[in-house]
Amino acid sequence: MPEEISSTLLESAVTELSRLPGIGRKTALRLALHMLRRDEAEVTALGESLINMRRNICYCRCCHNISETELCDVCANERRDHGTVCVVENVNDVMSIERTRQYSGVYHVLGGVISPMDGVGPDMLEIDSLVERVASGDVAEVILALGATMEGDTTNFYIFRKLAPFADVKVTQLARGVAVGNDLEYTDEITLGRSLLQRTLFTDSFSQ
Amino acid sequence: MPEEISSTLLESAVTELSRLPGIGRKTALRLALHMLRRDEAEVTALGESLINMRRNICYCRCCHNISETELCDVCANERRDHGTVCVVENVNDVMSIERTRQYSGVYHVLGGVISPMDGVGPDMLEIDSLVERVASGDVAEVILALGATMEGDTTNFYIFRKLAPFADVKVTQLARGVAVGNDLEYTDEITLGRSLLQRTLFTDSFSQ
Repeated sequence: MPEEISSTLLESAVTELSRLPGIGRKTALRLALHMLRRDEAEVTALGESLINMRRNICYCRCCHNISETELCDVCANERRDHGTVCVVENVNDVMSIERTRQYSGVYHVLGGVISPMDGVGPDMLEIDSLVERVASGDVAEVILALGATMEGDTTNFYIFRKLAPFADVKVTQLARGVAVGNDLEYTDEITLGRSLLQRTLFTDSFSQ
Repeated sequence: MPEEISSTLLESAVTELSRLPGIGRKTALRLALHMLRRDEAEVTALGESLINMRRNICYCRCCHNISETELCDVCANERRDHGTVCVVENVNDVMSIERTRQYSGVYHVLGGVISPMDGVGPDMLEIDSLVERVASGDVAEVILALGATMEGDTTNFYIFRKLAPFADVKVTQLARGVAVGNDLEYTDEITLGRSLLQRTLFTDSFSQ
């Protein structure tokens, strides 16, 4: 159904907005009409913040996290443990792990996971740069922190194989188990099975 | 839950995006990270189209529809019937009616409907300007085309009363009835009742 928009300026804004993921033409039109009702300063702030962000954010040359400088804040921080590298799928995951306040190592952002269905092969990800980083000799442990999906597992295994030559580097992965706050009856069988096999000694120090 | 975003540029873009209706911080972050992966030209086009739209679109001085000039395309079009004024709630409704290709008159955009619950009174809408327009003497018919809601009905009735002094101006409203394509069993009783009371003579010329 073609939207008959008389204004070319509105039409152009709607077209650009509807390129965004999850935003169709109807939503784009609703957003554009909302912006028309707001102060000019507010819309200018939005537009300029998007342009500035895209123009000035680059990727860290070491871990490929987003950064405003050549080396990101985490990699540039000397108090972090540069011998522990946590491998994550994307920038979002770095933020999620930082929010836990449980991690003091550094990151390596792959930029995706291996997914033949989506046409994503290992050479499209930052795997070679990870291997180089490990080969440089400063890394003691690599934590594979990809999602618990088939693609995540495949990628974990691929990286594990690539890192096999480095016998002195410990490769670990996130614990799989019952999510904190979940009842057993709502935990799927595979997760429950794994959490039994990988049971840990009971301690009274909770690291929530 | 505070999102720990290390980059102030990203933070600023997320904050601005999350001011939009229906877009929370999680969606805003997802959109911002998507934009980071796109070409700079594409993001610049989006940002600039929003700024240009807000800066250059104004409201028609006659019908209050959006316009790039003082008088909108519809009001400026001499082939349209300027004696018939269709009263609508907002700019979206103008587009909806234009899409039907069944209307050759002009519009009057109220900018909302009377809604005491939302603090919208008659003086916040373009009702006085409508009365002035009718008082100028060029209007033969006013079509009330507000939504079939309580607020729409209230506003219709308010306008109807305001226009009562102009005895030679016909005031009409959109037909209420069974929606085209709908089965009777899915039509609510009030609509069905009205469509019985307001039944029309059967003709074989469908105006789809």
